[in-house]
Amino acid sequence: MAMTYPLTIQRLISYFSKLPGIGKRTAERLAMAALSWNDSDLQGFSEVLSTLKQNIRPCACCGNLSEESLCPICQAPNRNQGLICVVEQPSQILVIENAGCYQGLYHVLGGKLAPLSGKGPETLRIKELKDRLAAGQVTELILATSPDVEGEATAHFLASECAGFGVTISRIASGVPVGADLNYADPATLSIAIHTRRTLE
Amino acid sequence: MAMTYPLTIQRLISYFSKLPGIGKRTAERLAMAALSWNDSDLQGFSEVLSTLKQNIRPCACCGNLSEESLCPICQAPNRNQGLICVVEQPSQILVIENAGCYQGLYHVLGGKLAPLSGKGPETLRIKELKDRLAAGQVTELILATSPDVEGEATAHFLASECAGFGVTISRIASGVPVGADLNYADPATLSIAIHTRRTLE
Repeated sequence: MAMTYPLTIQRLISYFSKLPGIGKRTAERLAMAALSWNDSDLQGFSEVLSTLKQNIRPCACCGNLSEESLCPICQAPNRNQGLICVVEQPSQILVIENAGCYQGLYHVLGGKLAPLSGKGPETLRIKELKDRLAAGQVTELILATSPDVEGEATAHFLASECAGFGVTISRIASGVPVGADLNYADPATLSIAIHTRRTLE
Repeated sequence: MAMTYPLTIQRLISYFSKLPGIGKRTAERLAMAALSWNDSDLQGFSEVLSTLKQNIRPCACCGNLSEESLCPICQAPNRNQGLICVVEQPSQILVIENAGCYQGLYHVLGGKLAPLSGKGPETLRIKELKDRLAAGQVTELILATSPDVEGEATAHFLASECAGFGVTISRIASGVPVGADLNYADPATLSIAIHTRRTLE
């Protein structure tokens, strides 16, 4: 008979295992590490998990993670209210914000179209986006879904869905990343980089 | 100004980051995954963390992880009470138990000697080990600390500390792992494997 961990440890291991990229061996290592934590860290970790859903909700306007009804970006008076950048997930707002290149608003779709895994348009926050466009303040919609097959399909779908609102619809550029070595550029990226080349003045 | 996650998410990320091998990016990914968990998983994870220290304590005899005062191995009537195998950590008991090759008792040291990082003999459960030897039932002490420099030093230290109790003191064998390719054996392992070779009958 194979010996196993005490039940409490087994439960802890099983929760760690539910996290993405954490296999059984890693979960065991994390559980052992948690055992050596001091009480205040364990209680703090426990409390933040149990109150997570109460403290964090989607922003009522853009769907960003928020501790209030409206997220800090939707509340900020100095953002360009005429621009909406559409992203798949809240974490992508952070990436764009940290680049410091954008002063408009956002809209979180909550994923991208993936017909093969049964993720259709009704699972995305498209109606909410149309409502914002219908309100009339927006002049441009920037589609920043991922530059992969599903992200492109989602962008095209959104472009046709939102065509009737009289707003400019744009797509973030694809191409060779800044600082990358051209030797390692993949054919698809290189192809789009050459195809959508800019004339230098 | 760089945008950041809401405070609750930052706290969750910081707790995940405290775990070994979890960097900031991974912690962010784990926190995002936890956000998508259902309520019962979040509450369960929270509860197992907050009650961890109450539910799990070191076995009063051997130091193994236990939900009762004595661990299942120390409680088992059919184990060989004359053998004690000394390991560094409770997780190593599991590894030996799962190999199914040992029917004696264990003793968890709680680490190994590491003078450079200030871990001296007083931080290990050596007095508890001597108390068990002094009780007189034990005939052999098997030293199963790691076959690295610190583990070897710890084994030698224990061997001299426990020399006065009239018990046989042995050390687990080092050598080429079963099933390993000799092409990839390291010089130190190969050297000990040849040096401690067995005569075949």
